[in-house]
Parts: sequence; C-alpha cells; structure tokens
Amino acid sequence: MSGPLTLVIGGAASGKSAYAEDLVINSGLPMVYIATAEAGDGEMTERIAIHRARRGIGWETRENPLTPGEELAALPPDRAVLLDCATMWLTNQMMRGDDPARAEDEFLAALAACRAEVVVVTNEVGQGIVPEHALSRRFREAQGRLNIRLAAQADRVVQVVAGLPLVLKGGAG
Amino acid sequence: MSGPLTLVIGGAASGKSAYAEDLVINSGLPMVYIATAEAGDGEMTERIAIHRARRGIGWETRENPLTPGEELAALPPDRAVLLDCATMWLTNQMMRGDDPARAEDEFLAALAACRAEVVVVTNEVGQGIVPEHALSRRFREAQGRLNIRLAAQADRVVQVVAGLPLVLKGGAG
Amino acid sequence: MSGPLTLVIGGAASGKSAYAEDLVINSGLPMVYIATAEAGDGEMTERIAIHRARRGIGWETRENPLTPGEELAALPPDRAVLLDCATMWLTNQMMRGDDPARAEDEFLAALAACRAEVVVVTNEVGQGIVPEHALSRRFREAQGRLNIRLAAQADRVVQVVAGLPLVLKGGAG
Repeated sequence: MSGPLTLVIGGAASGKSAYAEDLVINSGLPMVYIATAEAGDGEMTERIAIHRARRGIGWETRENPLTPGEELAALPPDRAVLLDCATMWLTNQMMRGDDPARAEDEFLAALAACRAEVVVVTNEVGQGIVPEHALSRRFREAQGRLNIRLAAQADRVVQVVAGLPLVLKGGAG
Repeated sequence: MSGPLTLVIGGAASGKSAYAEDLVINSGLPMVYIATAEAGDGEMTERIAIHRARRGIGWETRENPLTPGEELAALPPDRAVLLDCATMWLTNQMMRGDDPARAEDEFLAALAACRAEVVVVTNEVGQGIVPEHALSRRFREAQGRLNIRLAAQADRVVQVVAGLPLVLKGGAG
Repeated sequence: MSGPLTLVIGGAASGKSAYAEDLVINSGLPMVYIATAEAGDGEMTERIAIHRARRGIGWETRENPLTPGEELAALPPDRAVLLDCATMWLTNQMMRGDDPARAEDEFLAALAACRAEVVVVTNEVGQGIVPEHALSRRFREAQGRLNIRLAAQADRVVQVVAGLPLVLKGGAG
C-alpha cells in the first residue's frame, strides 16, 4: 500500500521548502531528503548549502538529479520523504534535450507506488509575462503540465505565499 | 436579461482552459467556443490544435480575434459560451498599436449585455520580475487593469493553480 | 503598545494599492501615506501621479525612499498609515549596492514598534520563469525573503488577485 503524497507549490523564495521540511519533521518518522539539484555553478552551490544548513541534522540525504523515482522505490513504509524539487528535476531532464514525457510517466508511477509518506516541492512559474526565449516558453509549458499531473495524483496540495500555506486540495487531511 | 458571467484566471499552462471547458460542458446547454487566438506562427498553431483536440466535438466555434463582443451580442440565452481568452484578445489589440481602453469598454459592455452564460478565460501575468522591455511592462499593466474590470463585473471568479480551482468571488454560486 | 500590521501582497497591477487604500480609508482615522517611490523616470512619474489622483484628498503624504521606518517612529497611535510599497523600498536599497539585510532589520523593527495602524503593500515577484539577469535573480530572492518576514510579523495578510482579496492570515481580524 502506498503512502500519502503531498504537493507543496510556490514561487521562488516563497518559503515552500521550509514549509515542506516542517511537514516531514512533524511526521515523527525517520526523515529522508531526496535532492534533485546539481551544484553546477556558484549560485546553485550556495543555495544547496543554505538549504542543507537550515534542515540541520537528522536527515538521510540521497542525491539523484535524473531518476529520483529509483530512490522512492527503495524506501520502506515507515519513512517521511522530502523530494526537493520537481522543478530542478524537470530542468535536468530538459537540459539533456530529452522530451520529458516518458521520464514523467516513470516519475509519477514511482510516486504512486512509494510506500513512504512523500512531500514533493515544485515551483509555480507561469504567472509572469510570456518569456522571450523559446526554451523558457517550453519549460513553462512543461512545468505547468507536470504540476497539473502531480496535483491530480496528490492527496493534498498546498500553495505557499510569503511563507503562509493555502490548502488547494485535501483540506480535511 | 443577461446571463451569468464567470471569470477563470490562471497562469500559463495552469489548467485554466480545461477547467473552463468543464464548466461549459457541465451546463448542459448547447456550447459555443469564441476563439480570440490567431494562428500567426508555429507555436500558436500547435497550441490551437491541442486545445481543439481536447475540446472534442459538440462545440460551435466562432473565431474573432479583435471584436469577440460581436459574437456575444448575437447569441440567444440558451447557450453556454467559452471565450478563450481575454489575454489573446488584449494582445491582438496592442499589436495593432491601439490604446485598448475604448475596445475594452465595448468588450465589457458586450459581456454585460450577453444573454447566454459566459465563461471568460484570462491570464495572470503580473507575479514575475519587472519585464525588461517597455512593451511588456505596458502589457502587464493593461492585462492587470483588464482583469480587475472583468473580475468586478463577473458573478463568479475562479483562480486555477495546477489544475485546482480556488474561488475568489461568488463562492455560493 | 504597537498598532496592528496588515500586509497586502499582489502582482503588478493586481489592485493591491487600491485595496490597501480602502483599508486605511475605512479605518476612520486620520490618514498618512508613506511613499517609497522615487520619480526617477517618466514611467515612474506617471505611476506616482496616477496613484496620487486615485487617493484624492485627505492624506498626509511623507516621502521617504530609503528610511521609511523614521516616519513610522514619529507617528502617534491615532493614525492609519499606508506604506506603498516594500518593493520600491527594497529596489532603492539594492540600487545603492547595499546588502539589504541590516536595513531590513531596522525596517521590521520600526514596523513592530509603530503605534499607529499600518498597512504595507508588497509585490509577489517569484511566480515567473527564472530571470535571465543575476541582479533580477538576487532581487527575486531578496523580495521573497522580505515578504516572508513581513508576513510572519503581520497580524493579517491579504493576497490580492484581479482586485479581489484572499485572506492568508488573520482571517478573523
């Protein structure tokens, strides 16, 4: 039997990761952090360090930028997992030049089958002006479609604005 | 007597069109689709084809990129109409170099007078960084102001995030 | 004793300033407007004029682009204050090349100590695509972090979309 899936969606620097971390901490279960970020440049390395410092100790960390579903499949039921984040994972897929459709199917199937409690963090990226570059427009479309699929599959969806949660689905949960 | 007006607002690829289509389908009335998009380039042609395939059969389609109010005025009361979308309409107006203020007055008056049930789709475009180009900044201002006027006039306003609805106005409707 | 703090957050041209003005007008208290905008170019001068015309008479205006906290400290309790906006203030700080962290501490302390009723307007800027320029990315991060701190300190937080309010915190207030 699969565990509950929570999707936390928000803009950049909206407090979504901190909110998602609290969900996992408050579960009382042993905590696993699945990181999809790659420390490719200085900005990203700094960001990863900030996130790691805030999480503190007590997390088992697994880094898997392209196939985080493999980590999910290996988890026992009595774990609470933070997957941070779907946006970095999608970025990694698209940087490889692949159509993310098949990888998405596998990712969503792994989430559905995972026996642990899972919290997935993702970005809202579609509420600005149409981007100038075609790649940005494709990414925006792909991220929007992925978010719709994740939200449809999730038991609970929470939007975070300025650090404050707004439940979009599963309010009684 | 005019029919009820619903405004569906969301980011790019947020699932707003699919949600709006369901509202019209669930009305049980004969369905009319007023399209404001112009198939000017490959991207837009592809997008139009995707939307058309999803809607399926059963829709009477009317294309009117600049004066969709004329289509609204011609409709009998026993119709449910999807106007998709106010953002493409505003884009078409601004591409002509016109000040959209007068066209907006006419558009809003046509919505107010329409006897059919109408669902209007529009984009939220103001939640990113200040755009680099002056035209983008002007568009962002114009879209924001239009959305405020549409929302003030609507009986019901629904924001769509990751395919999930959040009622901003007319919750009991 | 400090007065209540309300944070109004929204995108560009979302109707957030008009909503915030109504909050202050409806307080029935003498009204103070603390302006952080600098009329540096034509666009901003026009925007300031539009805001001023809409507010109408009855406001005492104080302009302070960099240290609005000094205005807050000087206010008696029986005032309702509109500070518009935190985004322009942050922009002014960052244009000077300073790390805004210390100025933020002072700003937040002045808000906490202010005896008047205060409404602060701020922008949501993080829900678009990753900005192309490093400065824009830094600003987006700084604005997001500032919004989180403002929201944590506020008694009431309202998001405005298309002119419509959505209470994120302090719903009973």
